[in-house]
Amino acid sequence: MRVWLNGAVVPAEAARIDPADRGFMLGDGLFETIRVAAGHPRHLDRHLARLAGGAAVLGIPLPMDAPAIAAGIASLLDETGLAEASVRLTLTRGPAPRGLLPPDMPRPTLLATVAPAPPPPAPARAVIARSTCRNELSPLSRLKSLNYLDGILARREAADRGADDALMLNTRGRLAEATVGNVFAVIDGVLVTPPAAEGALPGIARGLAIERLPVIERPVTVEELMRATEIAVTNSLGVRPVATLEDRPLEGRAVASELARVIGFA
Amino acid sequence: MRVWLNGAVVPAEAARIDPADRGFMLGDGLFETIRVAAGHPRHLDRHLARLAGGAAVLGIPLPMDAPAIAAGIASLLDETGLAEASVRLTLTRGPAPRGLLPPDMPRPTLLATVAPAPPPPAPARAVIARSTCRNELSPLSRLKSLNYLDGILARREAADRGADDALMLNTRGRLAEATVGNVFAVIDGVLVTPPAAEGALPGIARGLAIERLPVIERPVTVEELMRATEIAVTNSLGVRPVATLEDRPLEGRAVASELARVIGFA
Repeated sequence: MRVWLNGAVVPAEAARIDPADRGFMLGDGLFETIRVAAGHPRHLDRHLARLAGGAAVLGIPLPMDAPAIAAGIASLLDETGLAEASVRLTLTRGPAPRGLLPPDMPRPTLLATVAPAPPPPAPARAVIARSTCRNELSPLSRLKSLNYLDGILARREAADRGADDALMLNTRGRLAEATVGNVFAVIDGVLVTPPAAEGALPGIARGLAIERLPVIERPVTVEELMRATEIAVTNSLGVRPVATLEDRPLEGRAVASELARVIGFA
Repeated sequence: MRVWLNGAVVPAEAARIDPADRGFMLGDGLFETIRVAAGHPRHLDRHLARLAGGAAVLGIPLPMDAPAIAAGIASLLDETGLAEASVRLTLTRGPAPRGLLPPDMPRPTLLATVAPAPPPPAPARAVIARSTCRNELSPLSRLKSLNYLDGILARREAADRGADDALMLNTRGRLAEATVGNVFAVIDGVLVTPPAAEGALPGIARGLAIERLPVIERPVTVEELMRATEIAVTNSLGVRPVATLEDRPLEGRAVASELARVIGFA
């Protein structure tokens, strides 16, 4: 397999991340996961705009503009020949001497990797994470940053409890998001999703759903989750219905189908 | 300069981190920063015990035991010839396919790098971070993990506000720690530091101070910080007095000297 690293397509085995890269040393960076369908990255403009916005918050200069990044991804897809794929784009502040304060003249790292599109996952057995929570008081909760350990802890907890995914709460004990996607729930017949201020990443698929469907953005309590009639998790690779939440079956699938349709996965 | 990577001392330019390393992709790892004095790593047993404890929480198998890691660090110090130095030891879950769930058979990455010991920093002009906070409800707040972006945000905020460091609060608005060290404060004549449950990393220097000095571990409010008569920040490289907090001068230096003495820096 090949990767696109700092402007060139190279064999993955030849791609070298410097041990001094702040992405490796401090999680100092961002990423995007982009669905490729029929050879074309989906919603790439939105992904690149979100990346640029996050980079501005962190003060990481983008080493090239959006058209150049799009061309790089296209060249990677050309060389790999994958038509149904997922591309991961990673931006870090690059190699630097020790210390937290970023260097005056950063040399950011920009990497794109590609993998075959995963098959649509089966409806998820989900639990509510107890081991950790999202910090909605940090701006990081609204960035797709490399600081993913809380999600990893929650995902490991789900596996330990015999489940496929975990819904993560915020510091107030209300719903934030799932480990790798946003959560939509039908509560009292109304489709709702937590606002970004609750610790939900502003997902690309989430944004499309809010634009195209009657979704109410409002805080969601655990009690409400436990009586939801349908729950679905969205991310840029697809929509996954929740089959059970804490062992309670959820029969509804209509909203998941509708979400997939408006996001463009149906 | 040379580094020690997965059991071998190699030139830094030849050391390659795989782009698929979960440390780079997801911040999935831990680190230790160890002071080297007169050629000897200080408190190495404590650092390696903390690393092993964190690795157990994250479920990352240590690729070798503590004596082998100590021997690797010693060989690195031998080859670099640095007697006054700081060693950074980084452990990640290693390269893996996409996805949050760790692989069944991880191949962890273990890296040690060394840099000359920095000169003792001048007393710090400190502010209280407004841009973000630590999440004391996450177990990560008690691990020295690679998820360091909140600290980077706070450190950049300090620089933007003309300061050298930031004291970080927790989600309740009480003191947690500084961006790269624990905080000790003299309040009403008593030396206090926040407990780990408040979002303070259980620092090695902090632990030594608590064992060897009459320190009270208790929550510390902003109001208390603002009337402290002395504040000092400790980490494994040294003790830094706080000269001003939010522009208010702090004259006391006695506790900083005492902390340096019992931790072994004086």
